[in-house]
Amino acid sequence: MRWNADGLVPVIVQELGSNDVLMFAFMNRDALEATLARGEAVYWSRSRQKLWHKGEESGHVQKVREMRLDCDADVILLKVEQLEGIACHTGRHSCFFRALDAVGDGGPRWVEIDPVLVDPSRIYRK
Amino acid sequence: MRWNADGLVPVIVQELGSNDVLMFAFMNRDALEATLARGEAVYWSRSRQKLWHKGEESGHVQKVREMRLDCDADVILLKVEQLEGIACHTGRHSCFFRALDAVGDGGPRWVEIDPVLVDPSRIYRK
Repeated sequence: MRWNADGLVPVIVQELGSNDVLMFAFMNRDALEATLARGEAVYWSRSRQKLWHKGEESGHVQKVREMRLDCDADVILLKVEQLEGIACHTGRHSCFFRALDAVGDGGPRWVEIDPVLVDPSRIYRK
Repeated sequence: MRWNADGLVPVIVQELGSNDVLMFAFMNRDALEATLARGEAVYWSRSRQKLWHKGEESGHVQKVREMRLDCDADVILLKVEQLEGIACHTGRHSCFFRALDAVGDGGPRWVEIDPVLVDPSRIYRK
């Protein structure tokens, strides 16, 4: 495996079954080892500069079912079972809830096409 | 949209229909505009430092059917129709052809689980 200059590897997170792409994150070596040890996704939070056990606050844990590596050995594809079916901090199923609408007036623009399933204030109230 | 410090945005490429994740690449602003203008994926090649019209040599063009943006507005999900069904330069369907085998002797290791569909020497012989 190849780590980037910051010691990180990009991780694409895909839901087992639906094959929906849920989110995109990074792991460092510690995060990868913690993920393997727990069987649940642990990322490296670049904003908080610390390990982030996904779902530790929200309960939206990701059970790891399969891990794949790309041809250049520098990107991981994580296939997960997403608890509660919500991966995004906005309370949506997937972080990729905006689609490009290229045909409207005024040129291309991003429009929200997936619903909020749970109000974020209810997810993080603890 | 937010571009990273290098003026790039990571792009996850997913096949329409199967929902298989095919590859991972980057776009700069020119690549994004070229992609929208052509209706086919154009990336920024970091190794060659130039625009890369995917399939320009191999014929394995990606017809763009949908473009999505994540909650942080810094990752693109591209849904494509993959010509010839081959995205990887190794002649495989997807670049993510290695899976982690965590149960074998000697600890976790990556094993190739997807077949080569076309010999790469036949793809790039031109």
